[in-house]
Amino acid sequence: MPADISSLTGGSLLVAWQLKDKHVLIVGGGDVASGRIESVLAADARITLICPSSGLHPLTKRFIEATDRITYCDRVFAAEDDLVGVDMALTAIDQVEESRRVCALCREHKIPVNVADIPESCDFYFGSQIRDGPLQVLISTNGQSPKLANIIRKRVEQALPNCAGDAISKVGELRTKLKERAPGVGGELGKRRMRWMIDICTSWEMEDLALMDSPMMDRLLDDGWEQNVTPNPDQFKALRGRRSGSASHATSASGVLLPILAFATGVICSGLWMSQRVR
Amino acid sequence: MPADISSLTGGSLLVAWQLKDKHVLIVGGGDVASGRIESVLAADARITLICPSSGLHPLTKRFIEATDRITYCDRVFAAEDDLVGVDMALTAIDQVEESRRVCALCREHKIPVNVADIPESCDFYFGSQIRDGPLQVLISTNGQSPKLANIIRKRVEQALPNCAGDAISKVGELRTKLKERAPGVGGELGKRRMRWMIDICTSWEMEDLALMDSPMMDRLLDDGWEQNVTPNPDQFKALRGRRSGSASHATSASGVLLPILAFATGVICSGLWMSQRVR
Repeated sequence: MPADISSLTGGSLLVAWQLKDKHVLIVGGGDVASGRIESVLAADARITLICPSSGLHPLTKRFIEATDRITYCDRVFAAEDDLVGVDMALTAIDQVEESRRVCALCREHKIPVNVADIPESCDFYFGSQIRDGPLQVLISTNGQSPKLANIIRKRVEQALPNCAGDAISKVGELRTKLKERAPGVGGELGKRRMRWMIDICTSWEMEDLALMDSPMMDRLLDDGWEQNVTPNPDQFKALRGRRSGSASHATSASGVLLPILAFATGVICSGLWMSQRVR
Repeated sequence: MPADISSLTGGSLLVAWQLKDKHVLIVGGGDVASGRIESVLAADARITLICPSSGLHPLTKRFIEATDRITYCDRVFAAEDDLVGVDMALTAIDQVEESRRVCALCREHKIPVNVADIPESCDFYFGSQIRDGPLQVLISTNGQSPKLANIIRKRVEQALPNCAGDAISKVGELRTKLKERAPGVGGELGKRRMRWMIDICTSWEMEDLALMDSPMMDRLLDDGWEQNVTPNPDQFKALRGRRSGSASHATSASGVLLPILAFATGVICSGLWMSQRVR
């Protein structure tokens, strides 16, 4: 809790909206709409896309051709009937008045809506986003500076370990295997399971987590979970066929290399200078 | 668009939900609820909090005392009447069946709902969050590994410039001043305004943006916007009373210092060695 509660203002509620098997209406098929389609498909929703074929961006066309999760309607948005069974609506068309009409209808039917480029017609914004497998990051400046959101997104992207998405997937798999081995909800067992997973996540580097494969996970459960210990990743390296470098290793290597080179240059320079003097 | 569209799965739709002047119902008053209260207040919503006073966490009590944006009801959740006029509901109570009942009622009334600890009763999740003034970041592993979400949040926090929140606020102010000076929506002027703001944001360091004050912004608009140029921040440093260090400056300083020291050590070492030989 901040000392000054009045400082709690000007923000949004950042949330990961669940769309699995939900029905999203997208009005418009241009460049912005194609980005929306990608985000919505990644969230496992079904899409109804309403847009005259003349207005389809090449990417949007490719999405329509590539998946049966999009129901395409070659026409403009008509009326309330288009909102039947819709859980969320996104519009990305140039007609301001038409956008406002869709928004008003959505609000009447309590359907969450985002209208591209008209902030007051949005129940939610998208901000700047990063996606790496199961890892998703949203950066919002609450409308103050989309450009800085973009700059910060790039910095955050650089700071994320290359293997973060893989590490998360593998930890997810390990957790599933652990739950199969020690099933049940809550209670003492649930707590022990959570503690053990936390120990693995904190004591192993993300690079090591990302390199787990199924036999390794099984051995980790045999030698770790069953014995109630947290094995060191080094004990498992022999099991691996491969070992890839990581950004953090590269950084620390250059951090060491530069002083060594500078030291050597110092030795050579003063050697040359001294040898001149001696002559 | 990814080459393999079937890889688009397993995600959520990350959004910045707008709650300004909306009405959020929070059921429960413990530790988790106090965190929800903070997030919701920061998004400028009104709160109705339902929880018997015996169940209030000290932080929740302090929130109730500190702001009139919370309407507190010293009782348990009763019935549908508690949902009248509610735009979003969050529950954080230990009673699983009661939580499920609230969730079912919310879904009946198309009110977005989050039930702590019961994923299938959630229309949205919160993930790991960072807040620095107008800057907000959400990190989600889509339920695969809350612990890794936490570890990644810390790395992201370290990667964010210390002054990012301030820089965003100041850029927001500058943009407001610019819009007052050159008003109107869209068109050529709108495009020029956007270009100029992007130029400032990309050519100035975040530290320099964060140090802008009102007179500086006015001069920046006089000397920059009016002349259609992007002034260098150095031209404005004389206007400032203060100059604070930044993490990135500190890093680059140590990045330079270490090779210099190593070079000097090299010179000294080989000097000593040569002087031994000469004797």
